[in-house]
Amino acid sequence: MTSSAASKSLPDIGDLRAAAERLAGRAVLTPLLEAPLLNARFGFRLLVKAETLQRTGSFKFRGAMNALLQLDERQRRAGVVAYSSGNHAQGVAAAAQLLGIPATIVMPADAPAVKVAKTRGYGAEVVLYDRWGESREAIGARLAAERGASLIPPYDDPRVIAGQGTVGLEIAAQAAALSTRLDALVVPASGGGLVAGCALALAAESPGTRIYSAEPEAADDLRRSLAAGERLANDPASRSICDALLAPMPGEITFAIHRRLLAGGLAVSDANVMRAMAVAFAELKLVVEPGGAAALAAILAGQLDAKDKTVAVVASGGNVDRETFMSALAGGMTGAGASGFN
Amino acid sequence: MTSSAASKSLPDIGDLRAAAERLAGRAVLTPLLEAPLLNARFGFRLLVKAETLQRTGSFKFRGAMNALLQLDERQRRAGVVAYSSGNHAQGVAAAAQLLGIPATIVMPADAPAVKVAKTRGYGAEVVLYDRWGESREAIGARLAAERGASLIPPYDDPRVIAGQGTVGLEIAAQAAALSTRLDALVVPASGGGLVAGCALALAAESPGTRIYSAEPEAADDLRRSLAAGERLANDPASRSICDALLAPMPGEITFAIHRRLLAGGLAVSDANVMRAMAVAFAELKLVVEPGGAAALAAILAGQLDAKDKTVAVVASGGNVDRETFMSALAGGMTGAGASGFN
Repeated sequence: MTSSAASKSLPDIGDLRAAAERLAGRAVLTPLLEAPLLNARFGFRLLVKAETLQRTGSFKFRGAMNALLQLDERQRRAGVVAYSSGNHAQGVAAAAQLLGIPATIVMPADAPAVKVAKTRGYGAEVVLYDRWGESREAIGARLAAERGASLIPPYDDPRVIAGQGTVGLEIAAQAAALSTRLDALVVPASGGGLVAGCALALAAESPGTRIYSAEPEAADDLRRSLAAGERLANDPASRSICDALLAPMPGEITFAIHRRLLAGGLAVSDANVMRAMAVAFAELKLVVEPGGAAALAAILAGQLDAKDKTVAVVASGGNVDRETFMSALAGGMTGAGASGFN
Repeated sequence: MTSSAASKSLPDIGDLRAAAERLAGRAVLTPLLEAPLLNARFGFRLLVKAETLQRTGSFKFRGAMNALLQLDERQRRAGVVAYSSGNHAQGVAAAAQLLGIPATIVMPADAPAVKVAKTRGYGAEVVLYDRWGESREAIGARLAAERGASLIPPYDDPRVIAGQGTVGLEIAAQAAALSTRLDALVVPASGGGLVAGCALALAAESPGTRIYSAEPEAADDLRRSLAAGERLANDPASRSICDALLAPMPGEITFAIHRRLLAGGLAVSDANVMRAMAVAFAELKLVVEPGGAAALAAILAGQLDAKDKTVAVVASGGNVDRETFMSALAGGMTGAGASGFN
């Protein structure tokens, strides 16, 4: 379980508010969208936080930028190292480029080509590794030590969680501007930084809102960990189309927040994720990647009873290859859109 | 040319500001996005106003809602009639539904199925007509007379132009928040309400910005009209994939504004429009319909010298069938994305 060392460094709402100040004018204040025709079809009010429109196409930019802005001059010159399945890679690379900090990114060799190419496009050096045979943590730690660089973890870091949690602060403010009380918020989870940060935000700003994580069925470590009360790992052999949601287990810091603040964990099939991508295209005009659609998929597939409720979901990323996106649209066509749900 | 009757009813910046107040909390304040990797590749700073995320998937909601909010109680009860290739239809239908006003929409029989279905989804009665053989104006006028209903024109109406012009007010404010001076703004044009409204907004808020319309090459009536100094019509036999941009000629009121405030008209091929849709998907995570991508296409295809300049474009709508969108993505793949430009 969570060590006392980790619990000492848990971020709090003050850290989130400080992050929001740091990110103002640097991160996109993404819209909270809704589709009346979708609401009418399903009998709920669904609000979608479009983090797909964030810089670099995912929420990861927020945590990376918040962490990098807290490095001192010497640390900035020595550069940063990050390991990531793709979106954190782009987030760190883009934030580093904006701040003039050298960045080295450790990425799995099977990450979507578009994510690798874009990470290089932001000026970062990319080091590829075998997702199923090597430890990215070990590679990252070794590179950081060799170069005297700062390691920017993808989720288990209070600065990263606080930055990612600004998504939750914005959702709370945007729901309030709509004069809406949120019954629930569902957030895609891999290592769980985003859902941990959002839970901290809503606990302060909208304490009646129940927070749920959404994961692929094949990597539902957080759902099982919440049920067990301790951190459990995924089967390393399991696979999912949600390439952004394949962290081996919840983080130490993130899970200390999850177990305190989450109402539960939801899990979705790859097929439901693909259908949710087609719905996001048709009804919200959003390009959502598989992992980014997990929370939307959970709601559309009825994983949570949302009837007559107001529920927000985070569409957390949009970095998807054209082939995968076309496949999602083509699949949706055989089933007349979202009719495959429920 | 413009009659004195029309010029008397030209909207002004005060009408736009009043529209912005009416629409606050009713229309989505859509984000002004940019893609650093795209900027780096082309050597400009491109800002994209994502009106694809507006209610009903296009800017048309703004003009419709602004017009409907100015009807009195008796007019509201008698209902509204509109004719539209699709996006104005949805805009009027959705605004009418929100206000409890009965709506009848005259749509071309060959409009995308998704637009017809969604218009019906917003509770409107849809009357189909033959785009190439019948006059939608005549049908709309007859229906309005029969029912005592108010006709809500798609563009040639000061209330509609003022509502659509709130897009321009937001662009000016958002560019100012980025501390950026806009060298140019390019706006898709059919009847020209959006570009007229945006021109009025920028003339007041950012007078140094040059305003251009963007049209399909096959329906470049505004470009030719601007060059000739008088309203010219399209060849009724011409076809374009930009189904939203096929009005027969500029409006009377709109052209009175165009000829005073526009720097010129741009025109793009259907192939460039399809490539721009693929770029918007890959770089901005936006679903843009063909007509909505005309301004982006004009910039990416080099129709305007944007080198080292800051240029905004409006992505004006996202109501595209899956088949057309997949075709745009598939086409882009053979050309390695945007490499077909320039």
